[in-house]
Amino acid sequence: MKNNTDNCNGKMPSLRTFDFEKNVGGGTAVKCSRPMEKQLGRVSCLDTPCLVLDLDMLEGNLQKMQAVAKHAGKNLRPHAKTHKCSALARLQIEAGAIGVCVAKVSEAERLAKAGLANILITGPVVTQQKLGRLLAVRQTMPSLMLVVDHGDSVDWLSASMQAAGLTMDVLLDVDVGLKRSGVLPSDIPALAERVRSRPNLRLRGIQAYAGHVQHLRPYHERRTDSLQCLQQAVPIFRELKATIPTCDIFSASGTGTFDIDIAVPEVTELQVGSYVCMDTEYRGIGSAVDAAQFTAFAPALRVLTTVVSANHRGFVTVDAGLKSLYRDGGVPQVFAPPDAGLTYDWFGDEYGRITYSDPGAAPALGTVLELIPSHCDPTINLFDRFHLVREDSMIGEWPIDLRGCSQ
Amino acid sequence: MKNNTDNCNGKMPSLRTFDFEKNVGGGTAVKCSRPMEKQLGRVSCLDTPCLVLDLDMLEGNLQKMQAVAKHAGKNLRPHAKTHKCSALARLQIEAGAIGVCVAKVSEAERLAKAGLANILITGPVVTQQKLGRLLAVRQTMPSLMLVVDHGDSVDWLSASMQAAGLTMDVLLDVDVGLKRSGVLPSDIPALAERVRSRPNLRLRGIQAYAGHVQHLRPYHERRTDSLQCLQQAVPIFRELKATIPTCDIFSASGTGTFDIDIAVPEVTELQVGSYVCMDTEYRGIGSAVDAAQFTAFAPALRVLTTVVSANHRGFVTVDAGLKSLYRDGGVPQVFAPPDAGLTYDWFGDEYGRITYSDPGAAPALGTVLELIPSHCDPTINLFDRFHLVREDSMIGEWPIDLRGCSQ
Repeated sequence: MKNNTDNCNGKMPSLRTFDFEKNVGGGTAVKCSRPMEKQLGRVSCLDTPCLVLDLDMLEGNLQKMQAVAKHAGKNLRPHAKTHKCSALARLQIEAGAIGVCVAKVSEAERLAKAGLANILITGPVVTQQKLGRLLAVRQTMPSLMLVVDHGDSVDWLSASMQAAGLTMDVLLDVDVGLKRSGVLPSDIPALAERVRSRPNLRLRGIQAYAGHVQHLRPYHERRTDSLQCLQQAVPIFRELKATIPTCDIFSASGTGTFDIDIAVPEVTELQVGSYVCMDTEYRGIGSAVDAAQFTAFAPALRVLTTVVSANHRGFVTVDAGLKSLYRDGGVPQVFAPPDAGLTYDWFGDEYGRITYSDPGAAPALGTVLELIPSHCDPTINLFDRFHLVREDSMIGEWPIDLRGCSQ
Repeated sequence: MKNNTDNCNGKMPSLRTFDFEKNVGGGTAVKCSRPMEKQLGRVSCLDTPCLVLDLDMLEGNLQKMQAVAKHAGKNLRPHAKTHKCSALARLQIEAGAIGVCVAKVSEAERLAKAGLANILITGPVVTQQKLGRLLAVRQTMPSLMLVVDHGDSVDWLSASMQAAGLTMDVLLDVDVGLKRSGVLPSDIPALAERVRSRPNLRLRGIQAYAGHVQHLRPYHERRTDSLQCLQQAVPIFRELKATIPTCDIFSASGTGTFDIDIAVPEVTELQVGSYVCMDTEYRGIGSAVDAAQFTAFAPALRVLTTVVSANHRGFVTVDAGLKSLYRDGGVPQVFAPPDAGLTYDWFGDEYGRITYSDPGAAPALGTVLELIPSHCDPTINLFDRFHLVREDSMIGEWPIDLRGCSQ
């Protein structure tokens, strides 16, 4: 693929040990209505706006994160909230992940329906409706785990499981500074005791997610802060592990700190999400080897967009706006055509503006551009499918079957 | 409904001449799994996050805009890109609208599938894929209209229609300052001639959308700017109308300038969208009668969200984040509980933070809040259905069947 090396500093591994064509669970063949054009890549027979996953890059990303985790002696439990796709979750597990994370019960429902197991729900469940749905998933998935961060919800969860004659594995959600969910480290012993007092809840360990440091620049500041966060949870985990035989999970980390958090011996698994497809927000945070860029993972995710109006000098209008590129985390970047000095900015719900400084680089009416989204998670959630491409071929598509699962 | 008057300055009409229960095309009965609780309104048996449409408010909004248009002698062609719902589009037509607008061909496909007609596509169509899809819609809908803003796309459109032996009604898209699509007024005569030279295209008029002034504050500045924009198109329309018998449509306006643009005699129809459900961005732009608020239309659209973590003083965490409330146009407002001094801010993809200053107003774990989204169009596009409520009852739901139609 002509642009890979340009955009990845030539550092991307190309291991290709997976057989993606055999493993693309939901993949289906795509017929093009006209001959494949290669002007701007192999995907110009796709209508736009649409989401494209570059399988070479995806493969490299999966392999690299798995290799890093394995080398560090950590398990990988990637976050499916990023990609919202059971076929991709299955691929992560086949590549070596011990399971996946989800943020919401409705996401777990869809993954269970797709036949996946070993799912950790990383957010608290506190209402009767949600407990009912959780119970239904648990009935088909003994390996389901859930975090808890409040004594009341421990009681509600226990009562719900007791009524069904089931047990549930739980992690204590430790608030190491994000302040979004979790209990402060000082309150963990009481919460642990609350869980232990319930015979139908099994305490499996802790979750300590430092979400607030994932996008910190520069790298060394991020490193310092992430390690400080995790150190708050280390003595807690040691204590729990020493006294509770079932307590052996320390789930933590994210794409921004994966190579930092592996240095904490107590951490047992990494909850990384965005690495699988990446976005411009993550690519700009800097890394251990490059203060300006974070290029460990390749931008496998692209939004294709078409020039639909070209009546001005200096810019054209494309057909991807707020509803195709989630407005968060900066602005999307133009991936193809490369090196043409094109920049994207939002231009309303349905449109974007592509600015050029060189008149010779002005994209003509009907031209298809490839953009790297600024924030991958909510952008993926705007679409129903990934189109899968490798080099000059379209392989098929995966349904984004967790799309819209916000409950 | 207890909160209506609090939030609408008591100005909202309550005409109730529609029979919504009979007219809710896609409506289905909703069974609650437990008794309806009225603590925070009638919707607490709904799982969250979810979208709720208040039918009393919706009814008032539809009636008011229709009455204003009728009184001014204008047609109404509301924009379905806002609500993405064929049942609601049908209701707008039954209330008196002559048809609806859409931004994308895929939206027209869904409305055609639902049996609607008289659709104007407000954005240019320039690729073979889109022209093929447009043609398929046109084959079932002779009343379909499309804007054009480039000579090349006029030729492509004509060739496409000619091959199928069909004609197509078109409007010239006049760029009155938005610079997103459209041609400058000075280039309109040439484009009009291009259309006229094609026997299978019928020139029906112009579109002049001043999108860049819709959210301008204060009102009088918005008024001045909008009228200046439209005045650029007035002589063009007069000239076309005088020379081309079929040319009788001047489509313009938006929710922010509906009561301004009706003063332009040449304007024949209003392309208003957001008025039907409203959002905090529009409610903050000020109006002719109130410099700080725009309260002509009631906030019929709400996102319900639940407190899922409450371990800090001063704020709690709710389950609606970027994926349930589109991050654009400011921040959502807390509609219920009213007057509790609660404010929302985003807290990641799946969560929000509700801040309170009065400790007595702290929402407890499991509490359901109602929020007014900051930008309605892209927020609606995140969900699959509207839950319909009136006073203390849930009436049913409408599928958001144009959701995700970005092509």
